[in-house]
Amino acid sequence: MSFQKLDTLGHKLEALEHALSILGADEATHMAPGGGEKRAEAMATLAGMYHAQATAPEIADWIAAAKAEALNEDQVLALGEFERGYINATCLPTEFVERRTAATMRSEQLWRELRAKGDWDSFVPALEGVVALVREEAQLRAAALDLAPYDALMEQYDPGNRTADLDLVFADLKTFLKDFVPEALAAQEERLARRPRKPLNGPYPIEKQRELGLAAMRAVGFDFTHGSLAVSHHPFCGGVPSDVRMTTRYRTDEFLSSLMGVLHETGHALYEQGLPKAWSHWPLGKARGMGMHESQSLFVEMQLARSPEFWEFALPLVHLHLGEDAIPGWDIADILAEVNHVERGYIRVDADEVTYPLHVILRYELEQELVSGKLEASQVPEAWDAKMVEYLGISTINDPKDGPMQDVHWPGGAFGYFPSYTLGAMIAAQQWAALEKSLPQAREAMRKGDFSAINQWRADHIWSQGSRWSTPDLITRATGEPLNADYFKAHLRERYLG
Amino acid sequence: MSFQKLDTLGHKLEALEHALSILGADEATHMAPGGGEKRAEAMATLAGMYHAQATAPEIADWIAAAKAEALNEDQVLALGEFERGYINATCLPTEFVERRTAATMRSEQLWRELRAKGDWDSFVPALEGVVALVREEAQLRAAALDLAPYDALMEQYDPGNRTADLDLVFADLKTFLKDFVPEALAAQEERLARRPRKPLNGPYPIEKQRELGLAAMRAVGFDFTHGSLAVSHHPFCGGVPSDVRMTTRYRTDEFLSSLMGVLHETGHALYEQGLPKAWSHWPLGKARGMGMHESQSLFVEMQLARSPEFWEFALPLVHLHLGEDAIPGWDIADILAEVNHVERGYIRVDADEVTYPLHVILRYELEQELVSGKLEASQVPEAWDAKMVEYLGISTINDPKDGPMQDVHWPGGAFGYFPSYTLGAMIAAQQWAALEKSLPQAREAMRKGDFSAINQWRADHIWSQGSRWSTPDLITRATGEPLNADYFKAHLRERYLG
Repeated sequence: MSFQKLDTLGHKLEALEHALSILGADEATHMAPGGGEKRAEAMATLAGMYHAQATAPEIADWIAAAKAEALNEDQVLALGEFERGYINATCLPTEFVERRTAATMRSEQLWRELRAKGDWDSFVPALEGVVALVREEAQLRAAALDLAPYDALMEQYDPGNRTADLDLVFADLKTFLKDFVPEALAAQEERLARRPRKPLNGPYPIEKQRELGLAAMRAVGFDFTHGSLAVSHHPFCGGVPSDVRMTTRYRTDEFLSSLMGVLHETGHALYEQGLPKAWSHWPLGKARGMGMHESQSLFVEMQLARSPEFWEFALPLVHLHLGEDAIPGWDIADILAEVNHVERGYIRVDADEVTYPLHVILRYELEQELVSGKLEASQVPEAWDAKMVEYLGISTINDPKDGPMQDVHWPGGAFGYFPSYTLGAMIAAQQWAALEKSLPQAREAMRKGDFSAINQWRADHIWSQGSRWSTPDLITRATGEPLNADYFKAHLRERYLG
Repeated sequence: MSFQKLDTLGHKLEALEHALSILGADEATHMAPGGGEKRAEAMATLAGMYHAQATAPEIADWIAAAKAEALNEDQVLALGEFERGYINATCLPTEFVERRTAATMRSEQLWRELRAKGDWDSFVPALEGVVALVREEAQLRAAALDLAPYDALMEQYDPGNRTADLDLVFADLKTFLKDFVPEALAAQEERLARRPRKPLNGPYPIEKQRELGLAAMRAVGFDFTHGSLAVSHHPFCGGVPSDVRMTTRYRTDEFLSSLMGVLHETGHALYEQGLPKAWSHWPLGKARGMGMHESQSLFVEMQLARSPEFWEFALPLVHLHLGEDAIPGWDIADILAEVNHVERGYIRVDADEVTYPLHVILRYELEQELVSGKLEASQVPEAWDAKMVEYLGISTINDPKDGPMQDVHWPGGAFGYFPSYTLGAMIAAQQWAALEKSLPQAREAMRKGDFSAINQWRADHIWSQGSRWSTPDLITRATGEPLNADYFKAHLRERYLG
């Protein structure tokens, strides 16, 4: 039976993925400093085995034959995802993949070196090469998937996302935010005039911060029988659903950046831990995509953990673990002022939830033009600056390092990924609204640190669904309506002007 | 070129081994408790891939063709080890391997359950099944390798070991020890009458013990850029040569068991870290075998770390890390009395270096008879007891749990492995003698905590040789003479009667 062959293949791929995920997490947390070269060799070889097995020509025959077999409902869905994955993995000729991999590796290395110096001019030729390859890739993917070129790129990250839909939602959000940012800043200034920021009373020992982070993870539902928290330079959520490897990093002069980071990664972790176990060796059993994944992390970080209700429960936790004098005289309003501080800035990864979407929309607009050929790499600084001035009122024209050189995505050839971030923020707000409609007591439960009903709702509507639906369909099924910016806008209004 | 194909295969197998080693170490140290099932699945699948790739039929053709190719000296040696490994891995029919794997897995599970109850009678049928399979395996291996059946089993663990040689050495050692054990015990009693054991002043905090262990590792030469120390229930030395994963466990009521365990595992680690890097993807680049590996751990643990010279350097280290009052009033003689305490006991893994070889020789003798058919599984308790009484003067006839049920080796089908332990102890003593001949200042250097010349000698004579020579040849080349018990006997005399 051909489906059985796909099923067996799924177990092999799951084993290789398991190894790659754990080796990757181990590298960032426990590997000896001199172990990197052999680790890279081993992982490259395993990744090659994975690719060879996942793209073997006979798989096309198995998929075709399995379609004629008597399959149950789950198997039919699984077959669909096997096919989707196979097409996405095989639609680029090997010769092209090798050419692109070599070019993006060189370009990324060059970027690391030149970004530090802010040397845009020396970087342009490399970026031009990457853009040319991305255009070629978009055409190849578009032909294989019968999609528009940029849609075909997005399809890798969020299946079903189309610019025809996203353009409208992002345009709506952009119009809103251009006015909203100054309003939020003015309201914030007023609040701070009435209630100045209070000093912290560090240092905050790492061991105590760790205990606080673990307590917060436990409270919001992290399952420590299937995961753990370690330290790494760049925080991440990795590992496998049966053993999620989360990391954070600590500063001793303050504790909120680690705690909020831990809560963000816990959102990713809950999704992984909640995926359907019976499908774990099928592509169907994976999380739906990047936008949906980010929605789960931002749900915990933004919808839950930056709300006043959350801090009714969390402030005593801070006192318990860091000591009564850790934040002398602070009450919930002081914490909220700290974690919800809004500021116009150059850097996307440092941005707050109000300004962040404008950084993303800028990139979304520019990369569409780069892919279509309307814009050339050499023209990016001017185009970038014009949008930064228009959207955020700040100029980066003399500072490419903190302008178009700040992200690894373009040097690495990852076009079509940026929208996922803001898609995630909007989905998270829309999910909270839908959840509160069916669980009116959700805020009250959060006050008490009880996240069980909230998590059950998410498990039922999102986590247990794996990759059953396209991203837009999953959004609609979970929240009762298609993606739109209204709930995110309402959320921002309530939090920052309310 | 066929050798090139073997070389490429070596890289693939190295990557899979890397993954299996790191996943194995991770499982014992950092895996979430619920991650075991998926980990076992992933590791079984990767091990299956390894086996399939290492035993592919075309490898036989590559080996045959490579013999006719123009190879340099290293490649000729590498080819020999590729061939040795291939023959050992393929000399059992797949049907037999599956039958044996299933039987030993069942038998091991049953053993875990019945050992706790000391229920020998219920276990006998399973052991009889294993013994029957081991006899079959020994015949198959003997035919493929043109060796005697028990020699063919040992060949997996220590290539070149033959009962014709070992029987003589073990007989010599046994005769010596039967008299020596009572002498050593009498001398010990006398010493303890003059100088009673002193109390410890615990508790010893784990973090301080860890620092002490790390300092000891560093002193004897562990390279922390290529390895680390963690905690696990059963201490081990795992990982890969570029990233050796050592573990220990701690008790807080005393610190010597962890420290001596750390030093033992450091001996294994130094061997791995010292293997020839250029050969790391060839079987030739691996450590020679179990006996030689054990000799490196026992060299550090027994020859170095239980000597008076070592403690001249190490006692201040204990004070430094555990505090001046950790062992009030102790001097070096007190430490030595503690770490070199001799006691007749039932359990091999708890035995001291004087009685340990008798436990091993007993098993070596019995398992030869089990393999040859002279002894049946059902007769083991009587045979075991007779030897225990003869060699150590204690009876286990009423206590199978602490008699023939104590080890996992036989239930798991690992016959031919036991001699490696005592082989290691003898090699270690013989190595120290050879080393001291060419480095007369070795003891003096140890007093100062300087192990560099000692390690350089071992690197030159053992570690850098990888699997260039058979075990007996490596012993002779490194020490100038074939394996014999004289140095080990002299070592015991000096330490316990001196």
